[in-house]
Amino acid sequence: MKVRTPATTMLEVALFGAGRIGRIHAGNIAVTPGLRLRYVIDVNVAAAEELAAAFAATATDAERALADPLVAAVVIAASTAMHAELITRAAHAGKAIFCEKPVAAELDDARACAGVVAEAGVACMIGFQRRFDPTFAALKRRLDAGEIGAAEVVVLTSRDPAPPPLEYLKQSGGVFKDMLIHDFDVCRWLLADEILEIHATGACLSPDAAQAHDLDTAAVTLRSRRGCLCVINTSRHAAYGYDQRIEVLGAAGMLQAGNHRPTEVIAALAGAVSSDVPEPFFLDRYRRAYALEMAHFANLLAGTARPVPGLVDGIKALELAELATRSWREARALTCLI
Amino acid sequence: MKVRTPATTMLEVALFGAGRIGRIHAGNIAVTPGLRLRYVIDVNVAAAEELAAAFAATATDAERALADPLVAAVVIAASTAMHAELITRAAHAGKAIFCEKPVAAELDDARACAGVVAEAGVACMIGFQRRFDPTFAALKRRLDAGEIGAAEVVVLTSRDPAPPPLEYLKQSGGVFKDMLIHDFDVCRWLLADEILEIHATGACLSPDAAQAHDLDTAAVTLRSRRGCLCVINTSRHAAYGYDQRIEVLGAAGMLQAGNHRPTEVIAALAGAVSSDVPEPFFLDRYRRAYALEMAHFANLLAGTARPVPGLVDGIKALELAELATRSWREARALTCLI
Amino acid sequence: MKVRTPATTMLEVALFGAGRIGRIHAGNIAVTPGLRLRYVIDVNVAAAEELAAAFAATATDAERALADPLVAAVVIAASTAMHAELITRAAHAGKAIFCEKPVAAELDDARACAGVVAEAGVACMIGFQRRFDPTFAALKRRLDAGEIGAAEVVVLTSRDPAPPPLEYLKQSGGVFKDMLIHDFDVCRWLLADEILEIHATGACLSPDAAQAHDLDTAAVTLRSRRGCLCVINTSRHAAYGYDQRIEVLGAAGMLQAGNHRPTEVIAALAGAVSSDVPEPFFLDRYRRAYALEMAHFANLLAGTARPVPGLVDGIKALELAELATRSWREARALTCLI
Amino acid sequence: MKVRTPATTMLEVALFGAGRIGRIHAGNIAVTPGLRLRYVIDVNVAAAEELAAAFAATATDAERALADPLVAAVVIAASTAMHAELITRAAHAGKAIFCEKPVAAELDDARACAGVVAEAGVACMIGFQRRFDPTFAALKRRLDAGEIGAAEVVVLTSRDPAPPPLEYLKQSGGVFKDMLIHDFDVCRWLLADEILEIHATGACLSPDAAQAHDLDTAAVTLRSRRGCLCVINTSRHAAYGYDQRIEVLGAAGMLQAGNHRPTEVIAALAGAVSSDVPEPFFLDRYRRAYALEMAHFANLLAGTARPVPGLVDGIKALELAELATRSWREARALTCLI
Repeated sequence: MKVRTPATTMLEVALFGAGRIGRIHAGNIAVTPGLRLRYVIDVNVAAAEELAAAFAATATDAERALADPLVAAVVIAASTAMHAELITRAAHAGKAIFCEKPVAAELDDARACAGVVAEAGVACMIGFQRRFDPTFAALKRRLDAGEIGAAEVVVLTSRDPAPPPLEYLKQSGGVFKDMLIHDFDVCRWLLADEILEIHATGACLSPDAAQAHDLDTAAVTLRSRRGCLCVINTSRHAAYGYDQRIEVLGAAGMLQAGNHRPTEVIAALAGAVSSDVPEPFFLDRYRRAYALEMAHFANLLAGTARPVPGLVDGIKALELAELATRSWREARALTCLI
Repeated sequence: MKVRTPATTMLEVALFGAGRIGRIHAGNIAVTPGLRLRYVIDVNVAAAEELAAAFAATATDAERALADPLVAAVVIAASTAMHAELITRAAHAGKAIFCEKPVAAELDDARACAGVVAEAGVACMIGFQRRFDPTFAALKRRLDAGEIGAAEVVVLTSRDPAPPPLEYLKQSGGVFKDMLIHDFDVCRWLLADEILEIHATGACLSPDAAQAHDLDTAAVTLRSRRGCLCVINTSRHAAYGYDQRIEVLGAAGMLQAGNHRPTEVIAALAGAVSSDVPEPFFLDRYRRAYALEMAHFANLLAGTARPVPGLVDGIKALELAELATRSWREARALTCLI
Repeated sequence: MKVRTPATTMLEVALFGAGRIGRIHAGNIAVTPGLRLRYVIDVNVAAAEELAAAFAATATDAERALADPLVAAVVIAASTAMHAELITRAAHAGKAIFCEKPVAAELDDARACAGVVAEAGVACMIGFQRRFDPTFAALKRRLDAGEIGAAEVVVLTSRDPAPPPLEYLKQSGGVFKDMLIHDFDVCRWLLADEILEIHATGACLSPDAAQAHDLDTAAVTLRSRRGCLCVINTSRHAAYGYDQRIEVLGAAGMLQAGNHRPTEVIAALAGAVSSDVPEPFFLDRYRRAYALEMAHFANLLAGTARPVPGLVDGIKALELAELATRSWREARALTCLI
Repeated sequence: MKVRTPATTMLEVALFGAGRIGRIHAGNIAVTPGLRLRYVIDVNVAAAEELAAAFAATATDAERALADPLVAAVVIAASTAMHAELITRAAHAGKAIFCEKPVAAELDDARACAGVVAEAGVACMIGFQRRFDPTFAALKRRLDAGEIGAAEVVVLTSRDPAPPPLEYLKQSGGVFKDMLIHDFDVCRWLLADEILEIHATGACLSPDAAQAHDLDTAAVTLRSRRGCLCVINTSRHAAYGYDQRIEVLGAAGMLQAGNHRPTEVIAALAGAVSSDVPEPFFLDRYRRAYALEMAHFANLLAGTARPVPGLVDGIKALELAELATRSWREARALTCLI
């Protein structure tokens, strides 16, 4: 809990989306020095009003929020279908942009956004919050510092605690776009290298995934230009919680990022010595990551940080997700055209 | 980061003390639903004003703060020498009280406070924050739930990262009152039993401790009425960080509470496999404990929690600290008169 | 260290190969109740004589050893090039056979051995010692007992501490036959299922591997008939030791088999908390596995255990190694013809 | 499993005691290069004969064994009541001596042995096997190498899995002589310092311990001449197995020696992440220690190792056990007269 020091200039923020992730961002805006929540916009007006009231902000609509010259930045946490349009309107209005992943459901829309944003010359950051997780960020810092030499093999374990409802699955875009897009970003971020070849396969072990013509279990192998391998294994369920791990083998050793536990209690009983299961859900595991991500956005607005991860990262991750989907469907490895 | 839901009634708080621990409490008051920081009082007026400004509060003096009928509660984080007087004045003014440990430097003053508070009929809670640490609290819940049967042996490890300056040591009241008072409270809390016999010994391995006629290394053995043993080992320094662990052996197993680490990164290099050292300082380790403690105080004010740990716990811990000091000086085990 | 109980019938064994692995087997024969080392055979006569002397056995040649009716069994730890011939001769002589992996360098030879052995009706066991590692075997038992439900994803980490010399690499048969043959056997053993599809890729990061037209880093994805995925990542070097881990995700949880450490010492110093690196080499890690494997062979001779892993397992693992090599060379996934 | 190289001179050993610990020593003598088991002596002649047969040795009586000039050394694993007499007779016969702890039940007898052995000029080693445990020995080496600076606090956790039968308890000599004698030796060994002050207390939580007028739970605090503190906590039972841990805090860090587990399997299930409980019994935990202890005795006989731990260590540990017993009975700290 950081003490808010009196900021000389408070930047006003308009938040689009009063749902689960919108509420997280609202709370983080409130405790981030230099930011103040001014507007909350949501098609569900009651939700917008309740969230606005909790933070002494005002519920309004997009037009008024974007027209207000006091608004310096927007935080887009609306549904994916709205992302591209809101990015475009915010860019036209000259606002700095923070947008949840993915940039858009379709690659063409995402690429169009990049053009608009570049033309408008506004800063735009994409919400790949895993880069801000204290454990993942520490691993990345130590990797970049050369602690294990050059990276050779990256192993990503990415398992949700439980699958979403069938209705969600049917319109999720598939497991590669919906779940692994985060892992594709993590892969590019860790390696600081682009992917040359990708192979994806998987299994469909649950009736829901079958009905959605999707996979619930997947394995992806990526090879980068420098010859580094990245293997990702993912599942829509893990009985023991939200399992998010990184392992990097380098020429001089290995770095691993393990799960976070709610407590450090260990119980030694007659049958076993046990500790807590991992944090149960992404909102728990990435609680601090979301706060640090918003602090980074504040620094970006203050001119002391770069817009990274940015639109290009969002587009690259989407490209890999589409390639993985094709690789699985065509049952063959694909080369990335760059 | 909890979203603040609009509270129907906000309770106004006056905070005494704008130092390190006062700032922690100010931040936690700000994010605790139902509490609002109204006044900050400190002999260092500049510090009071800066802290007040950061939280849209007002710097003032004790008289005005205690006379304001809008103030429902006080949080006392001033120097130990001021505790008893502030408790007394706040009780007379009918305010609910949260006071940092220790209740007072001397046992007589602490006992006098208990009388005043009882007569005034105000709620009073003492800041033994360790009881609110998520790991320690989970261990206590599981112990009380009978997971390991009846407690038989408690082992407390309590080591500061580095000794305080000589000036502090000279007026600290000694290692038993200054450091182990927390452990004595933890011991009583875990066992839910009173101590029958105590033996303390120690060593003085640093020139500063010698000059302060104090110990820097100590071992205390306590035996409770039900025959449970508690052994505490403590040191003024631990090169690897702030080391705070609990181990409880019961008839059916063992519960351990380990240290918290900043990250879950593991590095496997040629010579060793290593993980992070523990959180470096009590403000890091007990960051969440302080927040949960203030939430408990808010619940106490709302009538949904009891004033525990209370004045009686503060007094009992002080009694054990004084007995330990005598046991060490007289080089013999002492029986607690109850 | 088991006490040898006086065995009613001692079975005499002829050991082929007095090299590193031959010496391991000689020691284990000596302490396995019911077995006695009678002959040691090696082209290096001095080595055979030294090893024989250490165990009160006799150095001899293959002809005499196989002609001796007192010899009930042979242990083949000679060079791979000799395996098929020795299996054939031993089968013709009616001896029970323990043969180190691989059955043969070429699949045709291995298949021919299977015919000969079947015709001779002798028991034949292949030395996939990992199945006898206490940690791996415990994982397998718990998996079979249903502790995590049906297996869905298997992750195998298989890294040697350091690459072998260039001369060895050049005639090793390639990383898939030389290193991953063990992992292919572990995969089949864990899943109790056959492989339907395989994809292999890799990188060549060291000059030696390049000169040997081989990989030093590889990633293999296997899909079984029941739809289980197995991902293997391997490297010819790991700065921190011999890294051999298994992870199985099932419908109801996960089982992991970690590395063994020489000691359980933990050091907490100013910069890090560290523990031992894994056992440095396969002879250390699998020391107990080799002993338990020989005990299993003794039980097989005594009629209380089955010849598992047997010739069919050796052949299946070799088939997968050849398919993996082709998949990598042809840069495409391959379907296993069964 | 070490390969036995042909030893130029085999030393013949007479083993007194064919019980549980005698069988362990017989097995270790058999696999220790340079040692050969010649005689087994036990009042239970059938047991002696069975054990002798298993190792191609001869069952005999003490007179014949000690009179045989081929016998270079004796290993005494008979009942404690016989130790002093056998040490005396073996010394008079000029044999090197390995004797299980304790040297004798009574301090006077132990001291008398020391005189006899010194006069005879034979080597004598006492079986404090914990000094040879790979984990404890590694901790000691690293402590002596200065890795954590000077030792300041030692914490020993010493818990048996389950109490012995009442009959054993009644004649055990009490928990301090029976269980903690090992810990007193470990304390002196780690600190390489003598004890100045001791305080012992405890609890009697089981009916059996009460009937034996003994404790089943104990806490001992020792202060050494250099001012190092050692705290020992012990219990006659631990539901999760045999719990034997060491922790040493030094000026520059901490070394911990943890328990050994049968396997490195980890299970992550819905409720908890669990690993194996510690090895269940001292014969499992100290299996390798017993083997390394016998190898040390062989080196002692070969002139390449010193007789440490020796008679003086056995006597010192016994002195501390008696002082601890008195401290508990008299409920006061005692100063060691040196």
